[in-house]
Amino acid sequence: MENALVVHGGAPTAVINTSLYGVIAGLRQQGFGGGVLGARFGSQGLLSEDFIDLGALPAAQLDALRHTPGSAIGTSRTQLEDAEYERIAQVLKEHHIRYVLYTGGNGSMDAAGKLWQRVQAQGITVVGVPKTIDNDLMVTDHAPGYASCANYLASTVQELAQDVQSLPIHIVVLEVMGRNTGWLAAATALARGGKTLAPHLICFPEVPFDEADFLARVQELHRRYGGAVVVASEGLKQADGTHVVPPIFRIGEAVYFGDVSSHLANVIIKNLGIKARGEKPGILNRCAAALVSQVDVQEAEAIGREAARLALAGQGGVMVGLRRVSSTPYAAELIHIPLAEVMKKERLFPREFMSADGHDVTPAFLDWARPLVNPPADFVSLV
Amino acid sequence: MENALVVHGGAPTAVINTSLYGVIAGLRQQGFGGGVLGARFGSQGLLSEDFIDLGALPAAQLDALRHTPGSAIGTSRTQLEDAEYERIAQVLKEHHIRYVLYTGGNGSMDAAGKLWQRVQAQGITVVGVPKTIDNDLMVTDHAPGYASCANYLASTVQELAQDVQSLPIHIVVLEVMGRNTGWLAAATALARGGKTLAPHLICFPEVPFDEADFLARVQELHRRYGGAVVVASEGLKQADGTHVVPPIFRIGEAVYFGDVSSHLANVIIKNLGIKARGEKPGILNRCAAALVSQVDVQEAEAIGREAARLALAGQGGVMVGLRRVSSTPYAAELIHIPLAEVMKKERLFPREFMSADGHDVTPAFLDWARPLVNPPADFVSLV
Repeated sequence: MENALVVHGGAPTAVINTSLYGVIAGLRQQGFGGGVLGARFGSQGLLSEDFIDLGALPAAQLDALRHTPGSAIGTSRTQLEDAEYERIAQVLKEHHIRYVLYTGGNGSMDAAGKLWQRVQAQGITVVGVPKTIDNDLMVTDHAPGYASCANYLASTVQELAQDVQSLPIHIVVLEVMGRNTGWLAAATALARGGKTLAPHLICFPEVPFDEADFLARVQELHRRYGGAVVVASEGLKQADGTHVVPPIFRIGEAVYFGDVSSHLANVIIKNLGIKARGEKPGILNRCAAALVSQVDVQEAEAIGREAARLALAGQGGVMVGLRRVSSTPYAAELIHIPLAEVMKKERLFPREFMSADGHDVTPAFLDWARPLVNPPADFVSLV
Repeated sequence: MENALVVHGGAPTAVINTSLYGVIAGLRQQGFGGGVLGARFGSQGLLSEDFIDLGALPAAQLDALRHTPGSAIGTSRTQLEDAEYERIAQVLKEHHIRYVLYTGGNGSMDAAGKLWQRVQAQGITVVGVPKTIDNDLMVTDHAPGYASCANYLASTVQELAQDVQSLPIHIVVLEVMGRNTGWLAAATALARGGKTLAPHLICFPEVPFDEADFLARVQELHRRYGGAVVVASEGLKQADGTHVVPPIFRIGEAVYFGDVSSHLANVIIKNLGIKARGEKPGILNRCAAALVSQVDVQEAEAIGREAARLALAGQGGVMVGLRRVSSTPYAAELIHIPLAEVMKKERLFPREFMSADGHDVTPAFLDWARPLVNPPADFVSLV
């Protein structure tokens, strides 16, 4: 009796369960007869032998996985200690687990790689299933989770733009996720079209924040449009690498900063005397099931199925990724990327996708990103 | 030649354009042959004679009105001065406007009432078309805009709950709109069902905020669940009526407060040493076109059509409202409410819809609210 195990790591996305569905469906498709387990709360469940039986899920629950946000089996942000891989190897052996499908971003691929190095001699196969809204995984064209978050943001900014242009009384600073990378901030540019000029300004974490320059740009936007939408990355930094928001307080070693959105709104009000608001959907960025990208859903499932196939074929030590074949029409193929190439690396938003002034995207980025999101809504504005 | 005019007032909603569509379609349905105008940016356009021709809209644009958020003709938050009604009466006369459809909330119904008192002797009919996400208009069971915002919040909290229960490492404080009333905060309770216990705590603006009590409740939630969702109204106040967030700075007479969500998150971190995040979708509350309530869309259009019929029949001085006939199955009928009964009044969230401790809703509220929103998603959680 051999079992397969799915582990989730890092923050969930709107489609991490779609990949989980893909893995389960893929194992069945390959005729796998062993047990299918999920580690409850990621590495935590792995260390404490706390497993969920995924082999006996009723059809309705299995189907619901395809559109449920969050991680249905739970996930963890705790990084594994080097000494814990030995313990995990033991747990895998005791539970007759031969196939491990490790789902996550940079940190999880690092864990998957280390685990594989430790257990491959035991005949255990570890395959990486990519997941990140930040799109900071190396080599792959993009990773499941990014397109849905991009779609959420493009759609949300398109809606927000209708509100702001119909009541142009304030600068709205929208804080978006993406940590140290501007891939998500960039995706808001997909909102443009027709009378929608929003986002009027994008502040990327890769571009040092300069308050004087920022204020000059906002003042000009206010003069021209009255109301405008500014997109700011949560990871915005100053030239010296420090966070753009001064630290509010410390508890032990942890430093707490205020929100970038409300900070920048306050900077605008105080310095320019212009009405401003900060909005921060926060976690809503990554759990917006009603606004998933259809391409993302398809790819998340396909990657899960391919990972299952690879695992059963004994091809461990790789992450399933995507190679873009064409943008128009959109086509991508599944590839196998050695875990060593993605472990703990971070792909920043490339300079060639940024406009010369560092506050907008290029047409090349829009061509790259547009096929990943759903068609825009056909709103009408008569003002 | 007689013309009809639509004026929008106050902040837009996700369905204010659906009512606008209803008015235009209603005028056509009644065989109205005059011009149909929209005041550009509300009272501002009315005073400056800046009108948009709505009579000649191409079919595609007319149809797009039904699902476009924001106000397609623009709106304004500027309150009319008493002296300006005389000027408006003159403008209406010069532009041969005999029918005025005034769309908005408390403030706009006040303006509509005052205008009607001034112009009815001239043979001009003014009819109110209700619009508010806050649901603070008197007499009517609810107003267009509320149900869509309620649906957005119920759906969003259901999604957020999946994320938090799958990675229960923080207390998430979600700030919701609603100004001085808790109707929207209450609607988040519709997210519950299955394994979803969120929102775990609701802070209404009608209930004085007590920090010590709040912290005790949050600590207990953290002890029991690890992660939890707290919903807090933007208008949260202390027992003495002051804002829960200390003022950050003043410019002239305007006082600026920080966001309730980040303030409460900081209160939790500082006092309990528990990880907390504040999220604030802000304007996204009222422009989420992808998450409108289907009942709201139908009612917004029906109310617009009825307002057009009333106006042409010369029945001015009233606002079209809704009287609930039954909750199960849901049925409501259109009624005509004298503007004097709604002008400048504010309907707070009733105590009988609140649980005894003031931090949750009653089953009676859920029975009242459930038919207004779309059916919940069928998510699955295995943790």
